[in-house]
Amino acid sequence: MIGIFDSGVGGMTVARAVELLLPRFPLLYLGDIARSPYGTKSDRTIVEYSIENTKFLIERGAQVIVIACNSASSVATDRLRQEFSIPIIEVITPAVEQALRQTRSCRIGVIGTKATIRSNIYERKILAERPECRVVSTPCPLLVPLVEEGWTNKRETKMILRRYLHSLKESQVDTLVLGCTHYPLLKHLIQPRIGKRVTLIDSSLAAAEYLRQYLQDNPDFTPSTQHEPGKNRYFVTDLTESTRSMAEKIFARPIDLQPVE
Amino acid sequence: MIGIFDSGVGGMTVARAVELLLPRFPLLYLGDIARSPYGTKSDRTIVEYSIENTKFLIERGAQVIVIACNSASSVATDRLRQEFSIPIIEVITPAVEQALRQTRSCRIGVIGTKATIRSNIYERKILAERPECRVVSTPCPLLVPLVEEGWTNKRETKMILRRYLHSLKESQVDTLVLGCTHYPLLKHLIQPRIGKRVTLIDSSLAAAEYLRQYLQDNPDFTPSTQHEPGKNRYFVTDLTESTRSMAEKIFARPIDLQPVE
Repeated sequence: MIGIFDSGVGGMTVARAVELLLPRFPLLYLGDIARSPYGTKSDRTIVEYSIENTKFLIERGAQVIVIACNSASSVATDRLRQEFSIPIIEVITPAVEQALRQTRSCRIGVIGTKATIRSNIYERKILAERPECRVVSTPCPLLVPLVEEGWTNKRETKMILRRYLHSLKESQVDTLVLGCTHYPLLKHLIQPRIGKRVTLIDSSLAAAEYLRQYLQDNPDFTPSTQHEPGKNRYFVTDLTESTRSMAEKIFARPIDLQPVE
Repeated sequence: MIGIFDSGVGGMTVARAVELLLPRFPLLYLGDIARSPYGTKSDRTIVEYSIENTKFLIERGAQVIVIACNSASSVATDRLRQEFSIPIIEVITPAVEQALRQTRSCRIGVIGTKATIRSNIYERKILAERPECRVVSTPCPLLVPLVEEGWTNKRETKMILRRYLHSLKESQVDTLVLGCTHYPLLKHLIQPRIGKRVTLIDSSLAAAEYLRQYLQDNPDFTPSTQHEPGKNRYFVTDLTESTRSMAEKIFARPIDLQPVE
């Protein structure tokens, strides 16, 4: 059983990709909406919440954990690996690997929450592999609330994106990592503003592909012949109308969200 | 001792007004930044957090509680009054009273978070006093993140405000309640966009004035001759750079923020 957690609904873009790539693996999702967002909070608080979420998923049978949140992946992965003995998969490494495969000029841009950019984890991981690269990072804290408001086509969102992407465009990056699981929902606005020659790396898709490879390489994990995505369970620590409508937008089908304490 | 809580830093606009109006009363503040914002969450979650915050303040000596958050005031006041025997002061009633004193046309606008507007509490309280009034309410969920980003003078913020205020302007309200403790920090942008003839009601100031009156009328509460605002204690459940800088902006002096669990 695959356990996936996120601070809210953004991680559902990862869950959705996992359902498509690995339809025969049962999946448990936990969205910690009652305490979202994580990306504006301190490392200490994000680590504490991530430990609680992982415990919740393991208690319900998860045998591998996917941290479907860049902020939590950035600051809590090491601690989760110390605390828990099951495999912990984060969303940074898969995106870094994909970015390094795609870039030609070795100029890579990264956008993310404050916590993710402050951690500098993308730059560290990229430079560890290819010290000759240049990494330009920009925190984009307003994108999460804009996506959660459903403002994915508004003029104001386009202006804010232009402002955020300005320095990345100036730096002539040829690859841009969407370092937050909410950002794939803004891909259609980001691509024309950063330029059509820039390759966008979707950390949600990259993580799902990484997980597929991991499970294939690992004989401990075998798919179930009876399982289908409709049986996957989606837990949320809080439930409002906007959560429901964002979930249905991401999955393009009705999702039974189960509130938990 | 006065206990004030909010989901984050917005309630500091209330604390600041209380310090100015009641400098001889010791004050304890709790900003639940680790779980902020409240305004996007469900009633149930907001009630649960409000009970925990009130307990925290009472355990540390608070004898009167001010709910310095419109979202929590809207959905948790009744429950807090059931659970606790000390006086609970909320920010809605003082703003309603002030709005009713100010309005001439009896057309009153209200802006707030989703939770506050969904509760419909401003309209209910206004109509209970003056059934002939017309109340126009608009949720403005992006204003809290914009204020917390410090975008209080950006072009995008002005555009978003124009969009939010459009229907209120069309309805020709003559009084506008700033129904969220973050919004006083946007007063300078709201006034020119809603029109200079519209009276803005600052729920933070209204609550502080209401508290002063309450304490004056109540012989159980006497000011301390030795107390000064510098001795007030400010607790936060999470601490980041942006919290620190917002706090200093609101108080216009350095504030010692104490992190608590």
